[in-house]
Amino acid sequence: MSAAKEHRYLGNPTRKVDGLDKVSGSSQFGADLTLTGMLYGKILRSSHAHARIKKIDTSKAAGRPGVMAVVTGADFPNLAHGTLACVGKRSFEMSYLSRVIMAREKVHFHGQPVAAVAARTLQEAEDALAFIEVEYEPLPVVLDPDEAMKPDAPLLHADLFTLSEGGVAPTPSNVAWHLEVERGDLARGFSDADVVIERSFRTRMVHQGYIEPEAECALVGPGGHITVWAVTQGIFLHREELSVLFQVPPGKIKVIPMEVGGAFGGKEHARVSPVCVALSRKCGRPVRIALTREEVLRATGPGAATVSSVKIGVKRNGQLTALHSRYTYSGGCYPGAPINRALAAAIAAYQIPNFKVEGFDVVTNKPKSVPYRAPGGTAATYAIEATMDEVARALEMDPLQLRKKNISRAGDPAPAGGNFDAIGFEKILASIERHPCWTIPLTGHNQGRGFALGFWPLGSGQAHCQLTLVSDGSVNLTLGSVDLSGTRTGFAQIVADELNISLEEVRVITADTDTVGYTDGSTGSRLAHDMGTAVYYACQNLLLELKQRAATSLQVPVEMVEYGEKRFSARGFSEGSLTLEDLARASFKGGSVIVAHGQVTQLQTAPATAGHVVDVEVDPETGKVKLLRYTSFQDVGFALNPTMVEGQMQGGATQGIGWALNEEYIYDANGAMKNATLLDYRMPTALDVPPLDCEIIEVPASQGAGPYGVRGAGEMGIVIPPAAICNAIARATGVRLTELPMTPERVFWAIQNTGH
Amino acid sequence: MSAAKEHRYLGNPTRKVDGLDKVSGSSQFGADLTLTGMLYGKILRSSHAHARIKKIDTSKAAGRPGVMAVVTGADFPNLAHGTLACVGKRSFEMSYLSRVIMAREKVHFHGQPVAAVAARTLQEAEDALAFIEVEYEPLPVVLDPDEAMKPDAPLLHADLFTLSEGGVAPTPSNVAWHLEVERGDLARGFSDADVVIERSFRTRMVHQGYIEPEAECALVGPGGHITVWAVTQGIFLHREELSVLFQVPPGKIKVIPMEVGGAFGGKEHARVSPVCVALSRKCGRPVRIALTREEVLRATGPGAATVSSVKIGVKRNGQLTALHSRYTYSGGCYPGAPINRALAAAIAAYQIPNFKVEGFDVVTNKPKSVPYRAPGGTAATYAIEATMDEVARALEMDPLQLRKKNISRAGDPAPAGGNFDAIGFEKILASIERHPCWTIPLTGHNQGRGFALGFWPLGSGQAHCQLTLVSDGSVNLTLGSVDLSGTRTGFAQIVADELNISLEEVRVITADTDTVGYTDGSTGSRLAHDMGTAVYYACQNLLLELKQRAATSLQVPVEMVEYGEKRFSARGFSEGSLTLEDLARASFKGGSVIVAHGQVTQLQTAPATAGHVVDVEVDPETGKVKLLRYTSFQDVGFALNPTMVEGQMQGGATQGIGWALNEEYIYDANGAMKNATLLDYRMPTALDVPPLDCEIIEVPASQGAGPYGVRGAGEMGIVIPPAAICNAIARATGVRLTELPMTPERVFWAIQNTGH
Repeated sequence: MSAAKEHRYLGNPTRKVDGLDKVSGSSQFGADLTLTGMLYGKILRSSHAHARIKKIDTSKAAGRPGVMAVVTGADFPNLAHGTLACVGKRSFEMSYLSRVIMAREKVHFHGQPVAAVAARTLQEAEDALAFIEVEYEPLPVVLDPDEAMKPDAPLLHADLFTLSEGGVAPTPSNVAWHLEVERGDLARGFSDADVVIERSFRTRMVHQGYIEPEAECALVGPGGHITVWAVTQGIFLHREELSVLFQVPPGKIKVIPMEVGGAFGGKEHARVSPVCVALSRKCGRPVRIALTREEVLRATGPGAATVSSVKIGVKRNGQLTALHSRYTYSGGCYPGAPINRALAAAIAAYQIPNFKVEGFDVVTNKPKSVPYRAPGGTAATYAIEATMDEVARALEMDPLQLRKKNISRAGDPAPAGGNFDAIGFEKILASIERHPCWTIPLTGHNQGRGFALGFWPLGSGQAHCQLTLVSDGSVNLTLGSVDLSGTRTGFAQIVADELNISLEEVRVITADTDTVGYTDGSTGSRLAHDMGTAVYYACQNLLLELKQRAATSLQVPVEMVEYGEKRFSARGFSEGSLTLEDLARASFKGGSVIVAHGQVTQLQTAPATAGHVVDVEVDPETGKVKLLRYTSFQDVGFALNPTMVEGQMQGGATQGIGWALNEEYIYDANGAMKNATLLDYRMPTALDVPPLDCEIIEVPASQGAGPYGVRGAGEMGIVIPPAAICNAIARATGVRLTELPMTPERVFWAIQNTGH
Repeated sequence: MSAAKEHRYLGNPTRKVDGLDKVSGSSQFGADLTLTGMLYGKILRSSHAHARIKKIDTSKAAGRPGVMAVVTGADFPNLAHGTLACVGKRSFEMSYLSRVIMAREKVHFHGQPVAAVAARTLQEAEDALAFIEVEYEPLPVVLDPDEAMKPDAPLLHADLFTLSEGGVAPTPSNVAWHLEVERGDLARGFSDADVVIERSFRTRMVHQGYIEPEAECALVGPGGHITVWAVTQGIFLHREELSVLFQVPPGKIKVIPMEVGGAFGGKEHARVSPVCVALSRKCGRPVRIALTREEVLRATGPGAATVSSVKIGVKRNGQLTALHSRYTYSGGCYPGAPINRALAAAIAAYQIPNFKVEGFDVVTNKPKSVPYRAPGGTAATYAIEATMDEVARALEMDPLQLRKKNISRAGDPAPAGGNFDAIGFEKILASIERHPCWTIPLTGHNQGRGFALGFWPLGSGQAHCQLTLVSDGSVNLTLGSVDLSGTRTGFAQIVADELNISLEEVRVITADTDTVGYTDGSTGSRLAHDMGTAVYYACQNLLLELKQRAATSLQVPVEMVEYGEKRFSARGFSEGSLTLEDLARASFKGGSVIVAHGQVTQLQTAPATAGHVVDVEVDPETGKVKLLRYTSFQDVGFALNPTMVEGQMQGGATQGIGWALNEEYIYDANGAMKNATLLDYRMPTALDVPPLDCEIIEVPASQGAGPYGVRGAGEMGIVIPPAAICNAIARATGVRLTELPMTPERVFWAIQNTGH
């Protein structure tokens, strides 16, 4: 396996190849784009969380100075329920998405787009919005998932019927999906237990917190061809969604990716660009829309809120006998909450002979959720790991020991089917056990140490790349995947090491949908894994091609050609060799061009595992939780670039810390978000977190999962912090916080109410 | 051969696929580009035709409002004499080109760039030019090539030494190259002749007359990476020239082609973009420069002027015995006139046992010439064909009969070596002979019919393309060649016919240097020929790939798979088939991406031949020549798109008519162009030409020259009109015009001076 050989770049800290562009401001984001004749668009948003739209009159707005187009839902094709956009192995329901993009007959969340305007200047566009007249018929609002599940709850959709194993329910409700997975004999499992712990939990909507508000541009040509400058995690899904939304063949749509300033799942689906397309179709000019921060917080796609309960049965020796957990995902006004993966992830860490997990996807009058990194994983892990911590306390057992007794190992059955390959739990626990963050005891008042374990299955999909040799011997690597997490650098390292050239001789180019083969989106932490493998294959193909040409030139069989240090020579011949540059130049001077491809269609997935240890100090007078020390242990299989892997671990930890302690969507009774600014939606800054220590664990993924044993590093880190911090607070105060975020106010009252 | 089968599109008139974009104004030319933060550049030009630059002070200009960068020759690396830019099989001398782009120690033509400014607005840039202080030391000016060849002529370059068969001359002169090619025994050939005709001719500089003035933009990033939005005939040559000019590896340069509004050889080399690059390097902002029409006429690269003489010896029966011709090319202030190809072309039509052709490349204080379509061909053919017409008159022989007796046929030796394959002369002459334009006699006063024959070898080079199957079964054809003559449409026809799909399902994409393999420039009428063949190969490769996938799906050997009407089926099986769309969708849903390549490296060339017949009526009182009828007969091998082939024939004829009758560069004694506007540089409009009839002849090129037998159609048409019109005027008036253009003034005085 390639990881075993000595690498110059792979496995070593390497500076980001796009660092200079980023810090100098020369990277081009959607908001940096200017096109000749470009207009500025603004969106008019619903002032109701639930209402019927009786009438929209845009005539006055259309006559305002500078206005060149106005659109409403009537300008979008009406998609039938069940219309899907399909890419790779995934499909997405588009009649929902199209209404999130622009409301039709009803609005379902406060801030939902109802119309949009394009004008010569941004100011003229903003001014024109006030002249759009919308007549609403308000409807009762439901915000809480438990309320939404009651039989007399206001119904969001007359055509939403609960899907469950028993089939489709006969009457509509706000429950889209009821999923149950059961194994073994639950009743027997609990009766076998010596101790049974049962807890309930609640988490709130949180935002992905990407620093770049969405800004996109579209231009529809006279023949109907659509060009979109998109901020997206996947250009091909984006194209497919536009294709379905506007009923235009995908071949007539070109998606050009701009630099992405953070996404974390929030920019996987088309949201703003379709509005630009509708406006551009009307006036034939390019239209750019840039969301404000308030629009981002109020009306994009936050991570879902949850209500959950966990019941664990365990023997005195620590062996788990039964688990029954129930999760209600409150993912906004349309179905699609990620309950299945979250359920699987929550139980993957442990071998439990008898379990039942239930999930509910419930709609409420809030913005439609999209993934926030490991979708559903954080909330599910919070519930399980907080309860496991209670179990450890009840058994008076060390939390690590409790996990060791139950963790999944290679060969054990996996929740999604099949068996685990090599998996990192054991090594993580062993590393923690001997690490100072665990061995050195806390000594102060109101201090506590928490630990939690996590798992995330990660994704896998198609990847395609092209490697071209330039006339000077450098190489261009062209990809259809966007760089969210520094993958450009990782891929450049792979090419440099596989081809034995320097990093400066590799250029990574993010191409548009016209110029590169299909690639699934940058999601599921799959890029380093999938695309990294495709890049590896492209390198091998390129070397083979070059060796064949060298063989022809050197007049030896290709099997005798060796390559090293940018030179091709024939084994056993001391004279006569060709450099990489020789071959490159020859291809530009009447030789044939050298282009190699690499692709993967279905690599074996390589799940991630992690454990976090956090020390807290709680001030009982204020409820403020101070993080003293934070250590992440994460199995990344093989760290292509340790510096960037640490960055991912620290980033995920910080996001989880915010989710744990500060961040939540606060709504008023009418369903309007009260804290739609970064002052009030409280994300952690560098001042709020301690040094985030990282221990990189490497249990290489099996060979079927790629040549380096890489496991995606991005999503795992966000899954664990709320659980670990909750456990630390419990150890510090004796109080179990069962709601996120664990704000000072909640911590204070929790302490008060239990008399500590 | 593919041309033999029934085609839906190939060989049939097909509407331009980019027609709607062009007429609606949505095609993006260089001047349509806007980039965020873009500055506007203006060039300061020399007011002397020959001078030493003693000093340039840019300090005041740099301080003017809005100015963000000023450059002079000092901002360009100094390239040693003989520094080459090499692409494909061609190399170009760059120390000359770099001085044409920006003068260094001397200026050699009036209008030569000496400095440039970039400012926030165009007005500020223009205003700042006046504040650049240049101190010149004027030098004597030489404008006429005969004067320039005299031993006491002012020397342009102290380091220019005549290169000839004898070696390099010991002392500098204004003659760069003296080329001689001789065969047989010239003296004997002339002594064998019954009639000897000798004539001298003179032609003037003309402009390619492209409707779009050059407008380019460049951005140099913080790490030195260069991006250029170029108006160019070849993105890879453009990149290589920038690489040499700025001593930057080609891999660090990206050339993005904008739509080209006519080029005809005038946009083959980098001219404006390097100035943009130098300015952008200084200020870090994108810089766009758009030339005015006056700058285009005064200071780009016109077609060379010539002085020539032709002496032909012939037997009474019409058989040529000897030819001695001499051409002096006056191609502006640097060497590089295209004498070798022109000499070969001029004698290619006829089998002459004894000949000597001489060429001289002479420098004068005028702008450096670049090709105007068939470079050198028009002037050389004018001289030969006008003299042949005199020979026909002297022998009282029909001009067609004279040609028939001497034309080259398949198997005859070719001037460039080897033998002719199938060649169109015979068929052209036969077509003319029975065509009404030849058989119907003229009946009016002062009317005359002229005929001339011509040949152009055309070019051949590398071409690479990529064909990608989109999820809906449509295809993207990605090329590294720009579309000058409608080749997009031709290629789309090839793909549609080879893949049996409709034209609307093919998208032709012109890519940049990052995303496609090396392709030689769009020159030498080679695109339909070379790239068309590469496209054909890509289609075959794609079909093979698809058949293999179909074979796997249908579970039959690939040899049994048949394809037709977008459906793959197994021969002999009535059931079970897959559509193109099935396979496309499968590749997007977990199957591997379908991308096919096609390339050619050195196709056999397929020369073009043509004959023009023109009827004129001359007004002896004004000298005005009116064209009554014009018919072009041209062998295009196979007309991919007859409508567009006719467009090329008519375009070439019109350009040649302008060259023949109206267009010339007029200089004052100081070397400044007097007629640098389209009012005074008199190009023909639609009102100046009669209906231009076209007879498409098809003598398919041999199999080694591509699958369709295509011969390039673009350049041939410009080669013949001056000769044909000169011959018509001679028939109408008895007077032989030996200077181009044959303006009314010249015709009038020629008639006067011969007493007609």
